[in-house]
Amino acid sequence: MPTSRELGLICGKLPPGPNNDICDIPGVGVGHCTLREGDINTGVTAILPHAGNLFREKVVAASHVINGFGKSVGLVQLDELGTLETPILLTNTLSVGTCATALVRHAVARNPDIGRTTSTVNPVVGECNDGPLNDIQALAISEDHALQAIERAAGSPVVQGSVGAGTGMTCFGYKGGVGSASRRLGFGEEAFHMGILVLSNFGAPGDLVLPDGRRAPPPPVQEAEEKGSIIIVVATDAPLEHRQLQRVIKRAGAGLGRLGSFWGHGSGDIAIGFSTAAIVHHDETEVLLSARYLREDCLDLLFRAAAEATQEAVLNSLLAAEPMVGRGGVARGSLGEALQKDLAKGQRPD
Amino acid sequence: MPTSRELGLICGKLPPGPNNDICDIPGVGVGHCTLREGDINTGVTAILPHAGNLFREKVVAASHVINGFGKSVGLVQLDELGTLETPILLTNTLSVGTCATALVRHAVARNPDIGRTTSTVNPVVGECNDGPLNDIQALAISEDHALQAIERAAGSPVVQGSVGAGTGMTCFGYKGGVGSASRRLGFGEEAFHMGILVLSNFGAPGDLVLPDGRRAPPPPVQEAEEKGSIIIVVATDAPLEHRQLQRVIKRAGAGLGRLGSFWGHGSGDIAIGFSTAAIVHHDETEVLLSARYLREDCLDLLFRAAAEATQEAVLNSLLAAEPMVGRGGVARGSLGEALQKDLAKGQRPD
Amino acid sequence: MPTSRELGLICGKLPPGPNNDICDIPGVGVGHCTLREGDINTGVTAILPHAGNLFREKVVAASHVINGFGKSVGLVQLDELGTLETPILLTNTLSVGTCATALVRHAVARNPDIGRTTSTVNPVVGECNDGPLNDIQALAISEDHALQAIERAAGSPVVQGSVGAGTGMTCFGYKGGVGSASRRLGFGEEAFHMGILVLSNFGAPGDLVLPDGRRAPPPPVQEAEEKGSIIIVVATDAPLEHRQLQRVIKRAGAGLGRLGSFWGHGSGDIAIGFSTAAIVHHDETEVLLSARYLREDCLDLLFRAAAEATQEAVLNSLLAAEPMVGRGGVARGSLGEALQKDLAKGQRPD
Amino acid sequence: MPTSRELGLICGKLPPGPNNDICDIPGVGVGHCTLREGDINTGVTAILPHAGNLFREKVVAASHVINGFGKSVGLVQLDELGTLETPILLTNTLSVGTCATALVRHAVARNPDIGRTTSTVNPVVGECNDGPLNDIQALAISEDHALQAIERAAGSPVVQGSVGAGTGMTCFGYKGGVGSASRRLGFGEEAFHMGILVLSNFGAPGDLVLPDGRRAPPPPVQEAEEKGSIIIVVATDAPLEHRQLQRVIKRAGAGLGRLGSFWGHGSGDIAIGFSTAAIVHHDETEVLLSARYLREDCLDLLFRAAAEATQEAVLNSLLAAEPMVGRGGVARGSLGEALQKDLAKGQRPD
Repeated sequence: MPTSRELGLICGKLPPGPNNDICDIPGVGVGHCTLREGDINTGVTAILPHAGNLFREKVVAASHVINGFGKSVGLVQLDELGTLETPILLTNTLSVGTCATALVRHAVARNPDIGRTTSTVNPVVGECNDGPLNDIQALAISEDHALQAIERAAGSPVVQGSVGAGTGMTCFGYKGGVGSASRRLGFGEEAFHMGILVLSNFGAPGDLVLPDGRRAPPPPVQEAEEKGSIIIVVATDAPLEHRQLQRVIKRAGAGLGRLGSFWGHGSGDIAIGFSTAAIVHHDETEVLLSARYLREDCLDLLFRAAAEATQEAVLNSLLAAEPMVGRGGVARGSLGEALQKDLAKGQRPD
Repeated sequence: MPTSRELGLICGKLPPGPNNDICDIPGVGVGHCTLREGDINTGVTAILPHAGNLFREKVVAASHVINGFGKSVGLVQLDELGTLETPILLTNTLSVGTCATALVRHAVARNPDIGRTTSTVNPVVGECNDGPLNDIQALAISEDHALQAIERAAGSPVVQGSVGAGTGMTCFGYKGGVGSASRRLGFGEEAFHMGILVLSNFGAPGDLVLPDGRRAPPPPVQEAEEKGSIIIVVATDAPLEHRQLQRVIKRAGAGLGRLGSFWGHGSGDIAIGFSTAAIVHHDETEVLLSARYLREDCLDLLFRAAAEATQEAVLNSLLAAEPMVGRGGVARGSLGEALQKDLAKGQRPD
Repeated sequence: MPTSRELGLICGKLPPGPNNDICDIPGVGVGHCTLREGDINTGVTAILPHAGNLFREKVVAASHVINGFGKSVGLVQLDELGTLETPILLTNTLSVGTCATALVRHAVARNPDIGRTTSTVNPVVGECNDGPLNDIQALAISEDHALQAIERAAGSPVVQGSVGAGTGMTCFGYKGGVGSASRRLGFGEEAFHMGILVLSNFGAPGDLVLPDGRRAPPPPVQEAEEKGSIIIVVATDAPLEHRQLQRVIKRAGAGLGRLGSFWGHGSGDIAIGFSTAAIVHHDETEVLLSARYLREDCLDLLFRAAAEATQEAVLNSLLAAEPMVGRGGVARGSLGEALQKDLAKGQRPD
Repeated sequence: MPTSRELGLICGKLPPGPNNDICDIPGVGVGHCTLREGDINTGVTAILPHAGNLFREKVVAASHVINGFGKSVGLVQLDELGTLETPILLTNTLSVGTCATALVRHAVARNPDIGRTTSTVNPVVGECNDGPLNDIQALAISEDHALQAIERAAGSPVVQGSVGAGTGMTCFGYKGGVGSASRRLGFGEEAFHMGILVLSNFGAPGDLVLPDGRRAPPPPVQEAEEKGSIIIVVATDAPLEHRQLQRVIKRAGAGLGRLGSFWGHGSGDIAIGFSTAAIVHHDETEVLLSARYLREDCLDLLFRAAAEATQEAVLNSLLAAEPMVGRGGVARGSLGEALQKDLAKGQRPD
């Protein structure tokens, strides 16, 4: 399926990165484990800031709760210390416990001093409710599935659509899933990138607005309430301190607004961000450290990028997702197909 | 000038209230004091939740900081106690101190026990920087101007555009100012309203997106940076507890996103909300009190309303504002005129 | 072992409740599952706000992060919606995932519509690191252990000391664990209660200050850093709205300060509170609801109670805990025995 | 009058700095303007992080609201940007507007580009209610008084007690005011300092606990409610990023707890901190900057220092304050005199 950009649906003004996905940030890897069997349509997606030992080489990180009807794990410590020390796992709502335990085992296996001679580890897991398409009560995700997602982490191109945690997701009444986009951040001769990966499971049917102002054609599903969620993972190689990063990732909410969302009551809309530019060493012995960061007003470019790339990543998740018939015959159509039908009719719907 | 709605620029799906402004909330009054003389182009706008003694009959209130590059006064106590006990004044950035003092004197005059036999009073003042059009260093606002704005408070229709605090404002490179809109909140036989009043002074030239997806025609001013601010005052007669109100007013940010804003670094974007449905009596003697509130998932309608009405109030502020030549000959054009020109040309710009 | 109060170590001025523990709040139950075998010294403690179906009959709740070096689960939704819909489980740091999953299964078993025709469930788990005494890497806690703790929930007297989640805890260098205390809240003819239960695992050796100003005798362990944590569960039958409850539980931090703590860097110090006075019905159909709450300045009594009862609950946890030789021979002495030794010597140490 | 330390009332374990006041931080200056005439007993205190142009050479800063029943000005931007760009002024509650305006004029006079070719300025003002001893309704503080306090800023020794903003303050029923203390922060060969200055106006009579565990002798005033406030200004030359500084200043609350406070409902308890180690240049042109900061676990020493020095600064404010008969004959006694009386009686009261 073509991406949003390939369809001429351009979000904002900034140029995308080379692959227009989160792996445009050097070192970042994304892996999926997908479960599709009968009523089970779910999975796990892993985002790795780098390929090394994250517990020992932490990255600067921050989170922002756009709407807190969600069960993500690990945000308290992330914001107190400003660091991320495990891969980020995304999965369905009822499997966060299992994924958290998997991250603990993964860290302990690589760092046998955890909880013995050094501190414990803070697993970070985001989630959306795939209940409409997946038998979420089955708790089908195992620790092994989580570890598989981590092991499969690779760079661009990021596999998008109904894969990994995105397998059973619904967005604006269409089939949702995993989507990604990126932006180039040019400061004179310096250039950085920002990449976004979303797990899209939010939006009331009929609310989706395309970047050209069109309302998306109405999906066959017509549920009144927005009951989903979205996790937005923001990665950058621009050097930022925690406070700056928190300002940046907050702008994901502006991108959701541009899509027609109002951050519905029943939606766990959460942004988690990290910068790979600064490593915080677990075994640091120096008292005084030094960090690079951007001049504060340079953040405007990152704010713009976060809003644009969030909007585009959601569209890409919708366009990459194939239609699905899930649990108990519940069906979700494809936005891409709906747009093509409209195109075929020579119409510009409104 | 026609409003956004009269121009066919419809924001969202919900019906507006009878006058489509913040004074659709019974009891709410808005008053302006406008200063225009030479390089002085500034003023004060007062929003009164009710016509009574606010210190003794407080209203439930909340604030939300979308972007905190701003100098608003009174938000700490507003959120600790969840009540508003003075009119809300809006003015230019350097005049918040004067307006705060005016609110103190206004409250003390009506409540001679303040700071003697009862507690002190918490003035609430929002601000935007009108420096480009106004000689803001002149500190031209006096306490008397602030009191005049309060005294002139009246109901619908709210005077909008380049009046009161809106006199010297700039928005997306066009002349900004005061704007308002409202939404009807129907719950079966019950109906409430939400009204929004904005002081619009934000947005980078060239970023404004209209509800039909058009980018607004480029304004003559072409400044690179967004350096403004926006204050969004949200009023409702729906009964809400503080936590619920805070959730509601947060959605103003989604409305800004729909306009093309990314909540710029240099912008003080702050929402202040109140519900007139519950009065908190300063002289309460009962230990146990009772309050009505909405079932939590009913908030979705208020979330949608807050996003839609914020978007529309900003457009109304732009459309109501006449062009201005301000301090040192700095000029700001009218969005309304620019749209009409486009219309005359029979063009639909993009 | 005698309690703090029985030793004449009185915290503050307010009278305790009938049993001086968290189960003085009608309906509240506490249950433990304790694991002690070889290097395994850990467990689970469950706090139930009432004996009914919590998912359908939620209680008003709030959380406050005193210091966020912790891995508690469920706080984001708790504060967004202001309700608790599962028992609160306490356990060791690496077992939060397992306990979260156990709470999910527990809720699904009683509410087969979860994730099918109604929303998902938000498990709430607090934790401290018992690594020094427990082989925490063994992940010895199973879902079944968690369910046992829930099933064993009973009222006063609360079993305190080295039981349940408290089994392997260390506090100010002494053996810590579970402790509890309560306060009577008298408002004229009205009376309510507040009960606190702590999982104490914080405090640098040598820092503990007793209510009479004595520094506790130095424990045999002399580690430089505070690396522990404390979870403070606050229960009350006083009617409070979420904002008020959040103000109240914040005062647990003042109680910790009185013990000589400075809320150390490595400590996850988290307060979770609930009020049983207001039930939020999952299947509510009314649009407009009503809630009772306390007049705001009446909170002062609850603030005082929260500080006092937190301080006393920690002391009770120390005094109830028997000395332990744990993983690899690591030993923790008993504060009670140390105080008795001092008493025998007729000394008042300082 | 002797200080707390001179009386043998030692707060905690860390050594004080050379002068044991906030001006132990190189560059920091404190100035007072005191008004005492008839019923007017009030003033202004200015804290200057350095003697240069603060608007152009900002310092890293943070704030923390312990209890938000207060009217401080400037905290929103302080925390969004993490910088302080004016002196901090302390005054009575109803004079914050005037002091904010004074800071604006002070900044504009030194920086004529403010609000013209560069951004506006964010004044920071803290306050307590001196109504019981001062005719606060008179709004006796003028902009000139505020400027005088700034101009008089000098280094150690800091004048403490009933001076400047402290003139009319009451603390635990005794005469309160301005107090200060400091701690040496030794990291091997590196050494920094932390200094605290408080404006003490909080605490219920009968609640004050001395560092040796004694309850202070009951003051002649016996008011039931805590209605005051405290502003805690924290200065350090240790290099910290904003998030770290926020963690540090939060610990002022632990110090208040040690004094017997429970952060009363009616008290505006607010901490404002800055680090002089990093200057943020208003006219910076580089995109990429570099900052030093402390290794995270080194913060434990600063946390301890913040708790200890806050406790000691409050005691010093009480001991330095002379007794006063204020507005309408309201009298406040001296803690120092009360302690001496007890000493003369050879008693150790409890």
